[in-house]
Amino acid sequence: MNLAEQVIKGDRRALAQAITLVESTKDQVEAALLMDAVLPHAGKSIRLGISGIPGVGKSTFIESFGSLLIERGHKVAVVAIDPSSPLTHGSILADKTRMPRLSASSAAFIRPSPSAGTLGGVATATREVITLCEAAGFDMILIETVGVGQSEVAISSLTDMVLLLLPPAGGDDLQGMKKGIVEIADLILVNKADGAFEEACNQAVLHYSSALSLSRSPAQVQKVSALKGTGLEDVRQKVTAFCEAQKQSGQWESRRSHQLASWFEDRLKERLWHTVLDRHGTEIATAKSDLLNGKISFGTFSHEWVNKVLERG
Amino acid sequence: MNLAEQVIKGDRRALAQAITLVESTKDQVEAALLMDAVLPHAGKSIRLGISGIPGVGKSTFIESFGSLLIERGHKVAVVAIDPSSPLTHGSILADKTRMPRLSASSAAFIRPSPSAGTLGGVATATREVITLCEAAGFDMILIETVGVGQSEVAISSLTDMVLLLLPPAGGDDLQGMKKGIVEIADLILVNKADGAFEEACNQAVLHYSSALSLSRSPAQVQKVSALKGTGLEDVRQKVTAFCEAQKQSGQWESRRSHQLASWFEDRLKERLWHTVLDRHGTEIATAKSDLLNGKISFGTFSHEWVNKVLERG
Repeated sequence: MNLAEQVIKGDRRALAQAITLVESTKDQVEAALLMDAVLPHAGKSIRLGISGIPGVGKSTFIESFGSLLIERGHKVAVVAIDPSSPLTHGSILADKTRMPRLSASSAAFIRPSPSAGTLGGVATATREVITLCEAAGFDMILIETVGVGQSEVAISSLTDMVLLLLPPAGGDDLQGMKKGIVEIADLILVNKADGAFEEACNQAVLHYSSALSLSRSPAQVQKVSALKGTGLEDVRQKVTAFCEAQKQSGQWESRRSHQLASWFEDRLKERLWHTVLDRHGTEIATAKSDLLNGKISFGTFSHEWVNKVLERG
Repeated sequence: MNLAEQVIKGDRRALAQAITLVESTKDQVEAALLMDAVLPHAGKSIRLGISGIPGVGKSTFIESFGSLLIERGHKVAVVAIDPSSPLTHGSILADKTRMPRLSASSAAFIRPSPSAGTLGGVATATREVITLCEAAGFDMILIETVGVGQSEVAISSLTDMVLLLLPPAGGDDLQGMKKGIVEIADLILVNKADGAFEEACNQAVLHYSSALSLSRSPAQVQKVSALKGTGLEDVRQKVTAFCEAQKQSGQWESRRSHQLASWFEDRLKERLWHTVLDRHGTEIATAKSDLLNGKISFGTFSHEWVNKVLERG
């Protein structure tokens, strides 16, 4: 049985091995063939983005919500987006030590971010990792991300629905984020609705709801306590309802097609560049040092060089 | 007088126009030639990254610190990194309305993030924007970024020194970020050292200092109040001392060479892809729909296609 077949059978070790293969920048052809083999078996999950700034409680939420999903019969995979950032290395995203219950469950698979120091050889391959988890039978993929910056754009292009976790403190600090929130979040969760923060959460829910009602965003806002587990069943039902509605309207299919097409283009682009680097690496290195020494200028060089490469291969 | 000459003369309208040109994805050849013309006149500034999560007080800090720099005779430009993120559109980064004193000064130039909705046609061209500001005579470039995710990697590759602003609340929430902070920050500023937060700031300085002393990071930690302007002259002196030391050790030159070389490679890559898109756009579109319909598989197609494109041009 080859690796793809083992993954499709649900073999966890094969899954981990396959992920390592697609994240490595070494065996691109082998990785592409693996993806070809698993792709027909993938796509049958709900891909749920979980976003929020550090400290808002993403790990705790994933631990509780993931456990609830498993109780309801799902198989849950947790992956991290944007693992190549030095700030999110391992310790924040998809951290097994912060998800003890999920880590111990046979119905869950957690893929932590690659650890620090491996940056050079690790590609951002979240799309591939999701696909592999789906092929292995996981039907709920939780994609964790730090909710600021480029990763927001990335999460919309990888998921069916985005949950945004916000802290109970609202007010002016978050004003600037609202436009972005409206654009990308499908459901907003004010977390830490327990103990001393309960009232602050109620206020924050009102605050965000009224801000959203002024926009034309259909996103809903509710409070949860990831720690105590309150509000999570409600979240689960909203996720199910949202996905059902998307499927009925045809938006589900069209969003996924669009995502697959843009993944395809990214990968083509990457493959093209790697092949060019293989063939013209020395030439590029020479041009770099000529540029640093002021011997060539960028505009003229790049124009001629690109034409040459595309003509002669 | 052409646009490049006007920029070099210090014409602010020409500068704004030149930035619009390099940020547009339309006139790539024209933009490259403009860069060729200004590059010999650039490079003589200090490029200072200002990083920190939303709400930590980046705008206020830039307003106060920038004003201090102007008093000391500098010409200050403020630009934003990662403007293509929906979450950081305009309202957070390089926001003129949050920097009234700088906005009114003839010794300052603020380039706000492109506004929402223009995403499609705007490239992330921070490197070019910095170069243009330098050519126009600005000798202190403050590069603002939201300090989480990919933008951290980007800021190290664009600046001479990185200041990281942290809130007075430390503790467990920030544990996960430390590894990243050590990697990229040259000076850590605990902001909001005023009023009720003064004591929390003192604690946080101790906390971070001891954490840093365990690592081998040479970064220093100090408190500031961006609001009251305290601690800023100290920051200015540390920045000057840091840059002097870097220049003497040769690290300045080597860091900048490395940055220029990697910028060169990025731009070559981009140019190659755009040319391929121009020539083979229809073919790629067909392949995309074939992929969606399951007629082709990615691995085999991309392999053959890349070889074909590089052979025949």
